[in-house]
Amino acid sequence: MSFSIAEMAKAARKASFSVANLNQQQKNDALEAMAQKLIERTELILAENEKDLIAGKDNGLTDAMIDRLRLTPARIEDLAGALREVAQLPDPVGRISNVNIRPNGIRVGKMRIPLGVIAMIYESRPNVTAEAAALCLKSGNVALLRGGKEALFSNLVIAKCLHEALEEQNIDPNAICVVPDPDRAVMNELMTLSDDVDLIIPRGGEGLIRFVTENSRIPVIQHFKGVCHLYVDSTADTNMALELLLNGKTQRTGVCNALETLLVDKAIAEQFLPLAAKALAEKNVKIHACEQSIGYFEGAEAATEADWDAEYLALEIAVRVVDDFDAAISHLEVYSSGHTEVICTQNYAKANEFTRRVNSAVVMVNASSRFSDGGQLGLGAEIGISTSKLHAYGPMGLESLTTEKFVVQGDGQIRD
Amino acid sequence: MSFSIAEMAKAARKASFSVANLNQQQKNDALEAMAQKLIERTELILAENEKDLIAGKDNGLTDAMIDRLRLTPARIEDLAGALREVAQLPDPVGRISNVNIRPNGIRVGKMRIPLGVIAMIYESRPNVTAEAAALCLKSGNVALLRGGKEALFSNLVIAKCLHEALEEQNIDPNAICVVPDPDRAVMNELMTLSDDVDLIIPRGGEGLIRFVTENSRIPVIQHFKGVCHLYVDSTADTNMALELLLNGKTQRTGVCNALETLLVDKAIAEQFLPLAAKALAEKNVKIHACEQSIGYFEGAEAATEADWDAEYLALEIAVRVVDDFDAAISHLEVYSSGHTEVICTQNYAKANEFTRRVNSAVVMVNASSRFSDGGQLGLGAEIGISTSKLHAYGPMGLESLTTEKFVVQGDGQIRD
Repeated sequence: MSFSIAEMAKAARKASFSVANLNQQQKNDALEAMAQKLIERTELILAENEKDLIAGKDNGLTDAMIDRLRLTPARIEDLAGALREVAQLPDPVGRISNVNIRPNGIRVGKMRIPLGVIAMIYESRPNVTAEAAALCLKSGNVALLRGGKEALFSNLVIAKCLHEALEEQNIDPNAICVVPDPDRAVMNELMTLSDDVDLIIPRGGEGLIRFVTENSRIPVIQHFKGVCHLYVDSTADTNMALELLLNGKTQRTGVCNALETLLVDKAIAEQFLPLAAKALAEKNVKIHACEQSIGYFEGAEAATEADWDAEYLALEIAVRVVDDFDAAISHLEVYSSGHTEVICTQNYAKANEFTRRVNSAVVMVNASSRFSDGGQLGLGAEIGISTSKLHAYGPMGLESLTTEKFVVQGDGQIRD
Repeated sequence: MSFSIAEMAKAARKASFSVANLNQQQKNDALEAMAQKLIERTELILAENEKDLIAGKDNGLTDAMIDRLRLTPARIEDLAGALREVAQLPDPVGRISNVNIRPNGIRVGKMRIPLGVIAMIYESRPNVTAEAAALCLKSGNVALLRGGKEALFSNLVIAKCLHEALEEQNIDPNAICVVPDPDRAVMNELMTLSDDVDLIIPRGGEGLIRFVTENSRIPVIQHFKGVCHLYVDSTADTNMALELLLNGKTQRTGVCNALETLLVDKAIAEQFLPLAAKALAEKNVKIHACEQSIGYFEGAEAATEADWDAEYLALEIAVRVVDDFDAAISHLEVYSSGHTEVICTQNYAKANEFTRRVNSAVVMVNASSRFSDGGQLGLGAEIGISTSKLHAYGPMGLESLTTEKFVVQGDGQIRD
């Protein structure tokens, strides 16, 4: 019998009606049961994960990829812990806001509700399977999960454990659907099932995200890349600027909230750039510098147009001297990736104007770009990050997996 | 020189940065200037409109279509009045909410910002050109407007008036872009310009909306159809139910918030259906009835599966007797169009359960479905209505044309 993604999506839609109506306690109990089940089944999970690891080595995965694929007893405990943390988060579903009474006496409010069925398309890490399922469940949604081929055994055994837990809690196991067929044709068909799937969240490289965006009939949350900027204004505290620069660029490099471009106001360049050059050199950061700054950096390469768009995800940074505040804003209007931009300044008006005029998903004054993630910003767990403005913008927590309907209470009012 | 939609979209993107930063007073002054200019230019507008009317008659437009196309001095005054009403609406841009202080002292909030460039694709009524432009401007967005071929002269002369007003107010005239080339190829290219256009709102028939949804690379606000239901619960006040039924079905028929299906609880059918049959007969409403109800209606047709999905937009209604509350909910889970559903009940628990379990965009207790529009629900002017849950759900006012970014204020915090 061959697998049908259309049938799976229909089952997911059907389950979505009961999942949307679980109360907080039911959802939290289910999350606790899921966490316990993963720990109880540690041996089974490791045995299935081993099959993926062996196949991965045979297929020439890099050590880094194998490491991301690998589960260990400690990692399974962490995963269970992550599920328990999701249980601790406040449930957004059912909250009513903006209630107002119209002249004719009808009472109008907005009630937060789940989106319905959320498909995730992701690559190798099998813990995403359990984490995404947990976030969808807590927000009253059904998760339809299509992980990478290389993690298939791991994803399926995790799904099996989660299903056991759901059944023990009398919840429709189709609340969590894991696609068992990694064929690309199945993914392509999934992207057409707009009657039964409400949202697709792709997580992975820019290529995957562009492919999904261009081919999906279902709304897609997009996160192409993070080219985060630090603008050192003429009034910046240079010590603070230096700390923000080093933290943003070197504390962790392979992440989307790492700094990729340094903009320095001309008025402070002579004071700041020698300090920056020394500090970056000590950290072995490769420099792509504009004409006005290249003289400060030993061994720097001349920046080209491509550098202003580059997401290095490595110990590399582009540096540009800008004439003034407006020139910094103009640079951002052209090159911002919509992710995170930081100004370092002591000036009140410039702090406010930067905050107002720069419309990236996260705009910061005197703080490290590395804070641009759901946990650091106080959302709790993060399901993804959006760099397009529709529906959600920036790090997405539980509330981003919901929408609001209008609720109206009347006493028989009719329209004239 | 041929027209380039890509160039127009680039100009729109460029203008979006300054439009996003206009303050309330600047936007309100511009709206007032736009209103005045339309009135001052009444003669010119009527002359251009006449060209569309003549062409429309030559091309065999129906009288109803010609009427929607026609501008008169009174209609131009109404249009100016609509622009002045938009000026009175509160400006959503810049509002900060959800501020919280993280353990490390950074202050995190969300600030409401414009989406950027909003494209509208619509059919014949030329007043949409001015109204949509006004709503986009008030919410800090650039409007990129592609109206129907049959209204082209009218749309272009309205655009000319609005541009004159913008220039007098020192606002980039590209804040309002009207596509001068009605060729379908231009529209098709527009739908690919995802770098410069943030959202597409199609307004028109289901065919247009499906075409845009299936072909756009840009997020689309969808509103396919409104199959609104009235469920008469076993505890309903039958007089109230009758009023809601007649108002919903007959007060205006060609609109998406008119009733299309009546669900009647079995326990009240014998009491309610004879009243409903008499009242609907007096209004000449054609009935498509289920097996259990057909006996009550003289001259009714037997309902088929297609009737449960039908948006009649006419004096026609589908009627179905359901076994109980859960059966009514089950009917809605299958046939709801996501627009508006009403319960008529005197029972507290059922009112609450219906409100909670039915996840259409607007869910009402004891009120007419005809209240399901932006003005009636208190949003002020309405730019459209969404029946898909992403970004906006239900009638869309100014706030639906905005999103929120994270704003962070620190004192030099870095991440450990």
